[in-house]
Amino acid sequence: MLVPGPVRIIGTGLIGGSLGLALSAAGVDVVVQDVSPGTQALAVEMGVGRAPRPGDPDPALVLVAAPPDVAAQLAVEALARWPRAIVADVASVKTTVLAGIVAARRAGDLDEDALARYVGTHPMAGREVAGVIASRGDLFQGRPFVVVPHGSTRPEARSILRALAVELGSVPVEMDAATHDAAVALVSHVPQIMSSLLAATLVDGPEQALGLAGQGLRDTTRIAASDPRLWVEILGANAAAIGPVLRDVRERLEAVLQALSSLEGDPDPGVGSRRALAGLIADGNRGVQRIPGKHGGAGDAFTTIVVLVPDRPGHLARLLTEIGQIGVNLEDLHLEHTLGKKVGLAHVSIERAHESLLTQALRERGWTVAES
Amino acid sequence: MLVPGPVRIIGTGLIGGSLGLALSAAGVDVVVQDVSPGTQALAVEMGVGRAPRPGDPDPALVLVAAPPDVAAQLAVEALARWPRAIVADVASVKTTVLAGIVAARRAGDLDEDALARYVGTHPMAGREVAGVIASRGDLFQGRPFVVVPHGSTRPEARSILRALAVELGSVPVEMDAATHDAAVALVSHVPQIMSSLLAATLVDGPEQALGLAGQGLRDTTRIAASDPRLWVEILGANAAAIGPVLRDVRERLEAVLQALSSLEGDPDPGVGSRRALAGLIADGNRGVQRIPGKHGGAGDAFTTIVVLVPDRPGHLARLLTEIGQIGVNLEDLHLEHTLGKKVGLAHVSIERAHESLLTQALRERGWTVAES
Repeated sequence: MLVPGPVRIIGTGLIGGSLGLALSAAGVDVVVQDVSPGTQALAVEMGVGRAPRPGDPDPALVLVAAPPDVAAQLAVEALARWPRAIVADVASVKTTVLAGIVAARRAGDLDEDALARYVGTHPMAGREVAGVIASRGDLFQGRPFVVVPHGSTRPEARSILRALAVELGSVPVEMDAATHDAAVALVSHVPQIMSSLLAATLVDGPEQALGLAGQGLRDTTRIAASDPRLWVEILGANAAAIGPVLRDVRERLEAVLQALSSLEGDPDPGVGSRRALAGLIADGNRGVQRIPGKHGGAGDAFTTIVVLVPDRPGHLARLLTEIGQIGVNLEDLHLEHTLGKKVGLAHVSIERAHESLLTQALRERGWTVAES
Repeated sequence: MLVPGPVRIIGTGLIGGSLGLALSAAGVDVVVQDVSPGTQALAVEMGVGRAPRPGDPDPALVLVAAPPDVAAQLAVEALARWPRAIVADVASVKTTVLAGIVAARRAGDLDEDALARYVGTHPMAGREVAGVIASRGDLFQGRPFVVVPHGSTRPEARSILRALAVELGSVPVEMDAATHDAAVALVSHVPQIMSSLLAATLVDGPEQALGLAGQGLRDTTRIAASDPRLWVEILGANAAAIGPVLRDVRERLEAVLQALSSLEGDPDPGVGSRRALAGLIADGNRGVQRIPGKHGGAGDAFTTIVVLVPDRPGHLARLLTEIGQIGVNLEDLHLEHTLGKKVGLAHVSIERAHESLLTQALRERGWTVAES
């Protein structure tokens, strides 16, 4: 057991619930509380943790997993109530929560020791569905868990939160609040805004046009299905970090609009306009190449081979059995099902080093493998 | 055989090559030509079709699958050279090609009969990889195939192209050139620009920030990896249809920037700013809901169950074998591999009607199925 108990979880939504499931499964004594008695009871029933009892020992660790707008206040209350507990929140924007806690210290509501017991965190996981009912003990596996200490956070608090990350199967990463907020503005909040802006163009589009939608549109708009209430809080709290990135986007968009309008009706207005469009697409190429592969490496240790599979029960199973027999481990698998045809395409991700071995062995066994 | 032969394919890139593979497989006499002798020879070797021979009969159908900037010119040449052939191009923007052909008619280079033998098409499929080597006979299966007649297109030309669509396993859709171009601006060209704009913000981002990237960023930027040369042509040719959609995006972006800057440093500037952000996310929700499911229906006939699978050869195969034994057909499958853990999550798509049957049967067999 790396994480000391008891752990008190305040707020049992998706994140609090999933934290509790993982910690309870690891044998930690988890006590849950939620502002809604019904939610708290459901969390207890699901095995997230137990309800508080009179005479409970003080928690060693408090995890505030409430909505971001009340996170600072609940953390301040917890720091004051349990004078030896390490207190962490999980809100996805860190500077505003820290500012709230520092303000309480300045107002004399907390002493210096209490401030030193606070550390921010951001377990970077989520699902399209919300609430304790969607909780999963494996929600954080393989995801970054950002530990966000401030200038006077105790070393012990940082260690305990890193231990929590490891216990969850997450990858612990440490950065200060401003660095964290700028990072999530770039990789999460601006993407959310761009996806929503794009999806919003579809509201009044003709049905016939929507019928031509392909995978590209589906991928670029998937996160636009996110919860408005939650996102208003997140975007509002991180406005200062989102603004500069989004203003760069606006500037670029202006240049694209100008290039398009000079090309409109005049297919050859000089090279400048074409260069602006080519520059946009080329910079997009460079940007997307900078995203690390999901294994955290440069993204080129793995490759995908495409195998034709008859779309009947049993054939995909046979393919996977034979891949196992050949001795190659599957990293990822995606089945592409084609409408109205009794055939599917299995996209099989493997280590690049095994590509030619597997391709050849599958062909010898009669499978159709696409040319790479 | 629904499509009359011989079919002449001009330009053997990904699209021309895939058309040829599909038609040759269906027994049509396909003759291929490409401006590059090496590409043409490779296409012949791959079975896309045969090389032209002296004394060949005139083609019944000519498919111009050359880059968009030369499509009109090649179509005009084909209409003039083969006075009984139906001639179609496959460029992804239709008004500019049609304008080129109408201009040739006005200049007297084509007669009225030749104009009537032209019909535009847009087989809506593609891959991230280009060239004849990436061709696949099944590229168009289940995808929309847009037939784009103009005012004086012969009924026979429309029928033959619809027959071609059916032969390819595509879903034929008919619309005029302006409607088509507005539709693809909305569902394809603006999404490409938004994805590239977003990915371009990553070019100068700190490495530590990119390390926090999740699936949302990967999905929203995937198409930003597209080929700049091709896209400059497409965006340039469809500037008139893209402009209005993109100007709406700019207006919305302005409102978001204004809301963010009034929230910056002031967490409670009145409800207006929050309402602007909530409105954006809510409209995004509405937009994404309008995209039809990949089976062309409302997207709710299918559902996904999530099963925990030990990440060792054989286990996924066993799961699929048992799903087959239970008698449920897999619609789609995606394996989620979690970093450093010997466990994966299989996302199994099935008909919604089979959800509870399959969930229960798998649990009885000892599988862990996530709560839906």
